[in-house]
Amino acid sequence: MKVGILGGGQLGRMLALEGRKLGLTFRFLEPAQPAPVDDLGEVIRAPYDDPEALDRFVDGLDVVTYEFENVPVAATRHLVDRVPVHPAPSALAVGQDRVSEKEAFRDADFLTAPFRAVDSLEELRDAVAELGLPAVLKTRRMGYDGKGQTVLRAEADVAPAWERLGGVPLLLESFVPFQRELSIIGVRGRDGASVFYPLVENVHRDGILWTTVAPAPRVSPELQAEAEGHVRHFLDHHGYVGVLAIELFDVDGKLLANEMAPRVHNSGHWTLDGAETSQFENHVRAVCGLPLGSTAPRCPSAMLNFLGDVPPLSEVLRVPGAHPHLYDKSPRPGRKVGHVNVTGADAAEVAERLAALEALALG
Amino acid sequence: MKVGILGGGQLGRMLALEGRKLGLTFRFLEPAQPAPVDDLGEVIRAPYDDPEALDRFVDGLDVVTYEFENVPVAATRHLVDRVPVHPAPSALAVGQDRVSEKEAFRDADFLTAPFRAVDSLEELRDAVAELGLPAVLKTRRMGYDGKGQTVLRAEADVAPAWERLGGVPLLLESFVPFQRELSIIGVRGRDGASVFYPLVENVHRDGILWTTVAPAPRVSPELQAEAEGHVRHFLDHHGYVGVLAIELFDVDGKLLANEMAPRVHNSGHWTLDGAETSQFENHVRAVCGLPLGSTAPRCPSAMLNFLGDVPPLSEVLRVPGAHPHLYDKSPRPGRKVGHVNVTGADAAEVAERLAALEALALG
Repeated sequence: MKVGILGGGQLGRMLALEGRKLGLTFRFLEPAQPAPVDDLGEVIRAPYDDPEALDRFVDGLDVVTYEFENVPVAATRHLVDRVPVHPAPSALAVGQDRVSEKEAFRDADFLTAPFRAVDSLEELRDAVAELGLPAVLKTRRMGYDGKGQTVLRAEADVAPAWERLGGVPLLLESFVPFQRELSIIGVRGRDGASVFYPLVENVHRDGILWTTVAPAPRVSPELQAEAEGHVRHFLDHHGYVGVLAIELFDVDGKLLANEMAPRVHNSGHWTLDGAETSQFENHVRAVCGLPLGSTAPRCPSAMLNFLGDVPPLSEVLRVPGAHPHLYDKSPRPGRKVGHVNVTGADAAEVAERLAALEALALG
Repeated sequence: MKVGILGGGQLGRMLALEGRKLGLTFRFLEPAQPAPVDDLGEVIRAPYDDPEALDRFVDGLDVVTYEFENVPVAATRHLVDRVPVHPAPSALAVGQDRVSEKEAFRDADFLTAPFRAVDSLEELRDAVAELGLPAVLKTRRMGYDGKGQTVLRAEADVAPAWERLGGVPLLLESFVPFQRELSIIGVRGRDGASVFYPLVENVHRDGILWTTVAPAPRVSPELQAEAEGHVRHFLDHHGYVGVLAIELFDVDGKLLANEMAPRVHNSGHWTLDGAETSQFENHVRAVCGLPLGSTAPRCPSAMLNFLGDVPPLSEVLRVPGAHPHLYDKSPRPGRKVGHVNVTGADAAEVAERLAALEALALG
């Protein structure tokens, strides 16, 4: 089968590296050159909304998916008449608007922070009065890695925040005093069967994911089952096919859904070395109509992002259990240029090895 | 680093799929089109002995290795002046001649079957008289997967065997009444450090590897240590860099060295899913001067070759613990077109799952 991927970043790279093992071939639509997917299949260099490029892209493909959630929905709708597109454009649309996203969470019986849509300074003042402070003001569209959001702590922050973000549709939500951030990845096949990876614990630095520990410590079977139930509800409701990631806040043992990504997700990179089947392989299996693979952890593991640049590879490889995955991207401050997974016999050993890798990455 | 690989078959494909994770890039010299390495790096299509193509191939590479042991040694010597070549052409030469190979085994204190070099029918008759029957007559060069060899059981077989194989240098060796075939893979880095995978048990069908069980059952720590000692001796003696595979006969608990391959080997394919670090990753780490990774098994596992064609992928994926690796090769009787690794909680579970996969492959 020939799989088309909209986007050609590191997620496309890892989808292809995992999918090639299954004998699948890949074609990418990616505006940038060079790109992490170079030399992993045919790359069509064009903007996502170029109709002529989309026609060339789709010709001869068996299925289309994406690795980047800000692909114009119109572009995917253009493709749907020609070839199956998974996840469906409607699921992509949900994830592109933080208000639709929150409503979809509520439809799936997830708890969320209280929120209000905000389109003017007056609406913002009303929303602040209703929800109270602190609160987080976010653009409804095109936010990622902490971009397009700001925290309002006092009345005096309101006007400058509007100054900074206003002019596009916004969302105000109550600031959630969470103990930790978790996430869960679900996968639904074309046949409607779904599987779930264990909840993982994520730590961010400057709004960018820094580490993931898998499985997350202190998660009861009940909490895991509850999270899976909500995600299954979401997947089934949307007739979703592929990997879906949901970021959650753990507030006194209750889970609040924060954001979704209708694609493979950075908090699932540990699965390449820590799970029976990686999120990347399961995503391509799902969109190609193949049976899904086991999501069971092989062993305790963790993931550390390399942000900006990659520490000397020899030193990384000297840490026992370290499995680096580099993206062929040139160094740039804050840029995700690779990650390293680390495995161990138990959580304490993983923590110790992760600390050694963090020291290298910060060194 | 940019790695050049002489050969572009499935071994090159798996080296590249594993090496790309480490951020390495690849260029291949491969006469055939299409080839399993297509779309995994630049492919130069030319015979191995085309000097102009070798010049284009080597330009800008950091290191050269190979995935095919019958590359002309002259071609590798042509490259050695320009760039490091690992393993060294001298090791390649040893493996290309069954007499040198046997002598190298003896230098490493391996036991081998008694053998004689044979260049005429008269020498063959003398060798048969000395070694007795049954015996195996093999071409000294270019044999693989059981090709270029025949078993002599009675005097009457001698002349027809000479008829069939004579005219090129041959080797006669005593037929070894072995209980089973084992193999071991060692890896030596540029710094001289070496690591070893556990002994595995191999079963052939029609002279072609069919299954590998890893680790091999009924191997004492002493036997493993003995095999490692011989391989280390071999690696150090030849200043070898990279993966070396040695096929062994188990004769009443004694190991006799049968054949070597100066490259990644089919009996190490299980390492992709069953070991901490795959043979492919460890080979590229070795030739690039990076630290070697752990060879510890992750769990009991086995490998089954897909010969001729690939059974329906959906059915393969429904077997728990099955991890297929397909090579993008068109079906042809006896051709290695892919393999499947299978993991399990214990050897019995692996055996049961392997049997299910064998039924599919034979179906």
